[in-house]
Amino acid sequence: MTDLEKHILLMDGPDNKGLIYHVAGVLFRHNLNIIHNDEYVSPAGQFFMRTEFEGTFDSVALLNELQAPWQDHTGQDTGAGITFRLNPKRKKNVVVLATKEHHCLGELLIRYAFDELDADILAVVSNYNLLQPLTSKFGIPFHYVSHENKTREEHEEAILRTLAIYEPEYLVLAKYMRVLTPGFVDRFPNRIINIHHSFLPAFIGANPYRQAYERGVKIIGATAHFVNNNLDEGPIIAQNVKEVDHRHTAADMATEGKDVEKIVLSQALKLVFNDRVFIAGNRAIVL
Amino acid sequence: MTDLEKHILLMDGPDNKGLIYHVAGVLFRHNLNIIHNDEYVSPAGQFFMRTEFEGTFDSVALLNELQAPWQDHTGQDTGAGITFRLNPKRKKNVVVLATKEHHCLGELLIRYAFDELDADILAVVSNYNLLQPLTSKFGIPFHYVSHENKTREEHEEAILRTLAIYEPEYLVLAKYMRVLTPGFVDRFPNRIINIHHSFLPAFIGANPYRQAYERGVKIIGATAHFVNNNLDEGPIIAQNVKEVDHRHTAADMATEGKDVEKIVLSQALKLVFNDRVFIAGNRAIVL
Amino acid sequence: MTDLEKHILLMDGPDNKGLIYHVAGVLFRHNLNIIHNDEYVSPAGQFFMRTEFEGTFDSVALLNELQAPWQDHTGQDTGAGITFRLNPKRKKNVVVLATKEHHCLGELLIRYAFDELDADILAVVSNYNLLQPLTSKFGIPFHYVSHENKTREEHEEAILRTLAIYEPEYLVLAKYMRVLTPGFVDRFPNRIINIHHSFLPAFIGANPYRQAYERGVKIIGATAHFVNNNLDEGPIIAQNVKEVDHRHTAADMATEGKDVEKIVLSQALKLVFNDRVFIAGNRAIVL
Amino acid sequence: MTDLEKHILLMDGPDNKGLIYHVAGVLFRHNLNIIHNDEYVSPAGQFFMRTEFEGTFDSVALLNELQAPWQDHTGQDTGAGITFRLNPKRKKNVVVLATKEHHCLGELLIRYAFDELDADILAVVSNYNLLQPLTSKFGIPFHYVSHENKTREEHEEAILRTLAIYEPEYLVLAKYMRVLTPGFVDRFPNRIINIHHSFLPAFIGANPYRQAYERGVKIIGATAHFVNNNLDEGPIIAQNVKEVDHRHTAADMATEGKDVEKIVLSQALKLVFNDRVFIAGNRAIVL
Repeated sequence: MTDLEKHILLMDGPDNKGLIYHVAGVLFRHNLNIIHNDEYVSPAGQFFMRTEFEGTFDSVALLNELQAPWQDHTGQDTGAGITFRLNPKRKKNVVVLATKEHHCLGELLIRYAFDELDADILAVVSNYNLLQPLTSKFGIPFHYVSHENKTREEHEEAILRTLAIYEPEYLVLAKYMRVLTPGFVDRFPNRIINIHHSFLPAFIGANPYRQAYERGVKIIGATAHFVNNNLDEGPIIAQNVKEVDHRHTAADMATEGKDVEKIVLSQALKLVFNDRVFIAGNRAIVL
Repeated sequence: MTDLEKHILLMDGPDNKGLIYHVAGVLFRHNLNIIHNDEYVSPAGQFFMRTEFEGTFDSVALLNELQAPWQDHTGQDTGAGITFRLNPKRKKNVVVLATKEHHCLGELLIRYAFDELDADILAVVSNYNLLQPLTSKFGIPFHYVSHENKTREEHEEAILRTLAIYEPEYLVLAKYMRVLTPGFVDRFPNRIINIHHSFLPAFIGANPYRQAYERGVKIIGATAHFVNNNLDEGPIIAQNVKEVDHRHTAADMATEGKDVEKIVLSQALKLVFNDRVFIAGNRAIVL
Repeated sequence: MTDLEKHILLMDGPDNKGLIYHVAGVLFRHNLNIIHNDEYVSPAGQFFMRTEFEGTFDSVALLNELQAPWQDHTGQDTGAGITFRLNPKRKKNVVVLATKEHHCLGELLIRYAFDELDADILAVVSNYNLLQPLTSKFGIPFHYVSHENKTREEHEEAILRTLAIYEPEYLVLAKYMRVLTPGFVDRFPNRIINIHHSFLPAFIGANPYRQAYERGVKIIGATAHFVNNNLDEGPIIAQNVKEVDHRHTAADMATEGKDVEKIVLSQALKLVFNDRVFIAGNRAIVL
Repeated sequence: MTDLEKHILLMDGPDNKGLIYHVAGVLFRHNLNIIHNDEYVSPAGQFFMRTEFEGTFDSVALLNELQAPWQDHTGQDTGAGITFRLNPKRKKNVVVLATKEHHCLGELLIRYAFDELDADILAVVSNYNLLQPLTSKFGIPFHYVSHENKTREEHEEAILRTLAIYEPEYLVLAKYMRVLTPGFVDRFPNRIINIHHSFLPAFIGANPYRQAYERGVKIIGATAHFVNNNLDEGPIIAQNVKEVDHRHTAADMATEGKDVEKIVLSQALKLVFNDRVFIAGNRAIVL
């Protein structure tokens, strides 16, 4: 197999003297051109590197050579435990889940319409049919999967049947207001991105703007994060905030908050879809 | 009694048709000049007004006239339940409590030295003696009141004996790291201002930067608030934030956070010392 | 004439002792209920007040009574020079002008589609036809008025003929990239709102992101302002910023900047369409 | 010569395939441990890298080996034009220049007193004697070098004689309000850091807060930059901003702006003193 375009090499594992030298050497010997290189070593000693490069190469041979042990300066073989992933630089396939609010979905649809999302929106799935007219304007399939008269599991089964049509790489929760079961989440590990309408970890759970109003905060915010099986507790990808004051009612805060939510979600998706986000326990490393 | 300088009239009570007309009329008839006027009616129907004015007047007569009932447009007497406070515009007297960290205390001392605090710092009280050299540079009395070998109550009694010398109007907790007992707090209702090293209500309690690091947040912040008897839960006066990323260790976040803390505390004090902050339940109204 | 709904009273003129008392008295005697009241006196002594009220009234009688002179505390007639405007609280009619970029137009169309704009978009006019598909999705008339083979005056005449169909109260320049002639601007005094893709007054004129990149700034921004006959120099309504660093190319800055631009423009329009913006020389007073 | 502690290797030159491999290889063979590594390639093809490492090494041999040409993958010798600098990680020596305003100087003195500046302040030089009391509190030599009755050149000569005592590596202009001559600036190439009280490039020159007020801006800011021989035009190191509104007078903006200025200056100095700032034409690259 031969590749000509841009590729992204992602590395993740225990830090190791000589690792950069090893990787730089392999790429150098394959005559590949590094465009960007970013690395990070956590205080706990875990190494993360994202290398964007271009050139023609045999991906099987390249990965084999990267994964082979190398000798450290003492002559010992080393390199155990490093994960190497090699992604072509290309758009991701996603399905968007939404409920009633339009602001995040609308933002994604417009960006997609003008090729600014780094992803293809294959379909929109919602437990209400309110957002069908908006979705249809952009020519995207809309699936209305009501949760009424269904158990949570039955509803998720119905959604999964719809998703099976599209086989998306990522699910984007664009103000999808239902809690997902652990069984559902486990099918998409680190592949579900949610926007939470608060500056987490403040105001976890329902109605955060009401909570924010009653607490009298002077700043509100929004948080885009991966979904795992702790409510609103997955790794945080991006956050942003906005000043408010006592004159803002809970409804005003919600209105102002929507502008923050849709921009933060878009920024987080851009990072994820460009393979810039690593997961380290409950933290997201953005390179 | 006759007053010539700037004064601040603070009003607080149930909203009432004709209230602004009444107050404007009284000030007009006394030939007083309104410099600033700010008002706010809460969704629950509570009225707040702060009127800065100048002129010569008899304060007893003025307050009597303001507090007298007035007739609404139907001829009914009205006006019950409004609290009127009349403050000369002047510096407040404060005592600062600190523990080991210098950044907030240093900020206050420098501002005070250059007459930018709208308050006089009468003394600094600390449960350690580390900040004595800094305080002494600015010629302010420093009282080292150790908490060692004392119960919480005994320690607070010792602090109260020191405070009795100065009779401060406000206590400023400039990174004072001990929890105050309800009995202590009750002696200074809405007169203790604290800086909390987090963006409340996230990370209540100890070591918030460690919590923030482990949660992987992308923004840290600080909160200045009145102290009441819910831990870190009094009315919020001011908040500010700063972007961080995964490269910040908990210690880096603490270092960056200090810059936010000291500026937020100073801004909150400026508001309080200029009689711009009303308390409405657990919310602070800043006019 | 009798009015039942919410109204906004706007006052603007030389500050005058007794003015608030006069206005509050007139509204009180008409049994009108003040919902919000905001005022500002400039350092130069100009008074601005915005009063939102509700109730039933005769607007001719009310304005006559407000405009009548009143006696100050010395018994002198006073009140000269105050302008009173009485607006029903209602949506404004606007036409949007755009060129090639979609992000601001798309934002306005989505907000309009969900009734969040406080205005009706009557039509979109553009000197290119690129944005016709986007506009048509939302069922808004699109007028393609090319500037090719026309003088600037001929082009503007063609636009004016289109505008004559709609008689808009405001023109919104949603990245309309042509400079308007003084003659055109004079027809819409303080009724044209522009978004400038820079943090004015930095980088006035063309290609500000290129300028920003070359200057190596660490923060970019956008400015919504009224258009008058100084290039990019009309009163500023709203501004916002975003951090960048040396890794941002000029193109990256432009991409990031678009998110700021569309939100700032929307926020500015909300202020203008709610009658919250006064013009004082080259400054905008936002009450 | 043998070094045991942390060192910083700075590289700057035309980008070159195999460069990272070369450097990583040299450090690997010397058994040096890379702690942080950051790199950047500009759109114009210039390569910047900052590598923090620790270990024992002979610095002459290390630099020789780094500077030696290496073979690229085609067997050609390469590496011309790269500058390598090797700095021990240590505090810098600085002299602070100030005029009348205390806020930036006070900030630096407090940070220095608590060892948070990453530099030693050897002395303060001022053209007024107002800041002597503040400086003396911290035990730092203060030199009053009046500009009265002196030409600009004579005044700078007098300052240079004072600086000659201390031989500082950097000069920090902490609100030093006199323009420096080209001759003076040329003696300290990229070694003078200034804080400008505006969000450059807006409001270049004198009295920016007055300009900002008259322009009616909604955000003010401050800029820390290197001084070169274009007024307020050297490479920008750090910027920050603060929201204002029409209620802020020019004096209020100046007061608010001081908080921004002192924090931005401190943040910029931290970057410079940790060898994190490269100069690329008129841009600062911060790694």
